[in-house]
Amino acid sequence: MYESLQSDDGFGNPGSLHRLGVLAEKSLKASLLSISSSLQTKTNELYFTSCGSESINTAVQGFLHANPRLGKHIISTRTEHKASLETLRYLEDSGYEVSYLRVDRNGQPDLHQLEQTIRKDTALITLTHVNNETGAVLPVADILAVRNRTNAQTRIHLDCVQSLGKLPMRLSNLGIDMASFSGHKVHSVKGIGLLYVREGCKVHPLIYGGGQQNGLRSGTESPYLAGALALAISLAEIDRDAALVRVTMLKKQLIEALADLSPSILSPENALPYIVNLSFASFSAETMLHALEEQDIYVSTVSACSSKNRKVSHVLLEMGVEPDVARNAVRISFSRFSTAQEVAAVSAAIHQIFSKYSTKRGRS
Amino acid sequence: MYESLQSDDGFGNPGSLHRLGVLAEKSLKASLLSISSSLQTKTNELYFTSCGSESINTAVQGFLHANPRLGKHIISTRTEHKASLETLRYLEDSGYEVSYLRVDRNGQPDLHQLEQTIRKDTALITLTHVNNETGAVLPVADILAVRNRTNAQTRIHLDCVQSLGKLPMRLSNLGIDMASFSGHKVHSVKGIGLLYVREGCKVHPLIYGGGQQNGLRSGTESPYLAGALALAISLAEIDRDAALVRVTMLKKQLIEALADLSPSILSPENALPYIVNLSFASFSAETMLHALEEQDIYVSTVSACSSKNRKVSHVLLEMGVEPDVARNAVRISFSRFSTAQEVAAVSAAIHQIFSKYSTKRGRS
Repeated sequence: MYESLQSDDGFGNPGSLHRLGVLAEKSLKASLLSISSSLQTKTNELYFTSCGSESINTAVQGFLHANPRLGKHIISTRTEHKASLETLRYLEDSGYEVSYLRVDRNGQPDLHQLEQTIRKDTALITLTHVNNETGAVLPVADILAVRNRTNAQTRIHLDCVQSLGKLPMRLSNLGIDMASFSGHKVHSVKGIGLLYVREGCKVHPLIYGGGQQNGLRSGTESPYLAGALALAISLAEIDRDAALVRVTMLKKQLIEALADLSPSILSPENALPYIVNLSFASFSAETMLHALEEQDIYVSTVSACSSKNRKVSHVLLEMGVEPDVARNAVRISFSRFSTAQEVAAVSAAIHQIFSKYSTKRGRS
Repeated sequence: MYESLQSDDGFGNPGSLHRLGVLAEKSLKASLLSISSSLQTKTNELYFTSCGSESINTAVQGFLHANPRLGKHIISTRTEHKASLETLRYLEDSGYEVSYLRVDRNGQPDLHQLEQTIRKDTALITLTHVNNETGAVLPVADILAVRNRTNAQTRIHLDCVQSLGKLPMRLSNLGIDMASFSGHKVHSVKGIGLLYVREGCKVHPLIYGGGQQNGLRSGTESPYLAGALALAISLAEIDRDAALVRVTMLKKQLIEALADLSPSILSPENALPYIVNLSFASFSAETMLHALEEQDIYVSTVSACSSKNRKVSHVLLEMGVEPDVARNAVRISFSRFSTAQEVAAVSAAIHQIFSKYSTKRGRS
């Protein structure tokens, strides 16, 4: 961002005919080309948006509005992010029918139920690639297999906000139709998101106007933000496989270091290791969060997008986690920059907090 | 942007409970407070969006969806920006009826026609405060007066993308219900817009999700972008009145300096002076644009959002400008940073281009 803000290349309006506009358009196209190479898509399958929520809303609402003949039935789960759940609720209010699949203790949707639930008028299956609260990884190939043998017309959208840069993302081979991404989850600046729509899949815009981005997303593009996203994705992709090995070790290290405190590990064992959801059932999650922040360690309770309501995680409850355990769930997130030293510090801090509060309150 | 990107204050997710989240939320609220003070609104009347187009789409679509009982009739003109025109076209396809008012040679909508056109079921009037191609200023008070004596239930949305920071924007007194703004038109970075919705005016979101911004616009907010917008607006507001006087003089200087070339001045005399739309009827606008860019002078033909189509301006044709004159219209835009020296350079460049091409082509 610093570098690009200092150059003229991203300053113009990519829609302008003059040199500054052409430079801005070139910058935008270079970003698109870089991302399409990272994600193995065609450049005309990618659309810049302002955030993951906009991507999800555009994919889900826009696809259904563009394909009324496919039917008004949607399949999802109740463990989606609010960006999906609230979009689905809006669609239910508008005459669509949504079937929510059960998930098991590992956060996996019930594939038998999926098979029974898909109908002739099922237009869309929308699911999350990696759950934002537990790291649970969707069995995409299994979902595709069920879809293919039940209703090949049904299209699939994945919320890939958490998997981008962490799992291989070869979209042309993955077999899904639409995917949503967010910039700030891969260390880009907040304010940019990305939407993948497979060529041939028809989607209506949410935002009408100058017809930018093949008419699917009007509004002046921001070459600076697009450049930041492209760079962030390419840096994440370069380190992706090595980082996955490192972070797998960090998750193991953390869980072993906390074992004497007997937390409930709520993230499935085969989850993406970047998110470790655990609960010290008798210890308030909010107390833990604030005690840790005193040592500059920042963890989450429920999703940041829901945390102001101080509700118990709908994701954990849906997975069958007992309310008392779910209520005190703490999410510790790693990035590819996390280190074993940091994990040791987190573990030491949690032990210290435990002994301090145990003395104070007798661990009531 | 440089400074804020170097600080932790805008890094967190404003929705997070921990210190980094609280800092981000404080930064966001400070931006909101600053803008609400500049525009004389309540903080709960302002919403950050990603661009002017998103603001316009949210206001127009979201208001109509939230107020079905007010009716399905809309009033506008054909001289709006594409962000409005295409939104209206989408709404027409969805069962709404739009009446487009005639505009006169000065770009003013016909107020008598407005009076006759407002019906019991007119839910919305959507117009542009300052036209982006001509600088024509809407007679807001007259529009309000007609609305008030015909159907006080009808709400008014203004596209204020061009007027922000250039005309006084005392929204609490202006009497309108919704207004749309864009960051990069006031020297902020591209990727941030703003929407004003008067308290009590009900609008549905386009983007559903975590319920940020009172549920009207979900998606993680970007404190960096919001901060850039707030600073840009406050700097523009400080200089606004003085800049208007300076730029009025620059427009006069430019028109006088070009008088010997007898251009048609298409911007109304009482237009906002920041945009000077003129046509050398016999001289190709595109040739002019490219000849000027060789001297690092950047002008526009039609709106950048439409320029790739190389169409004749729909705004000028609607105003009754002859097609041959409209086809070669060139838009010279000033900012509050423009100087008399720059105007002299532009005028000299245009004269030079004229004599060069006259010699070459005998001004055919």
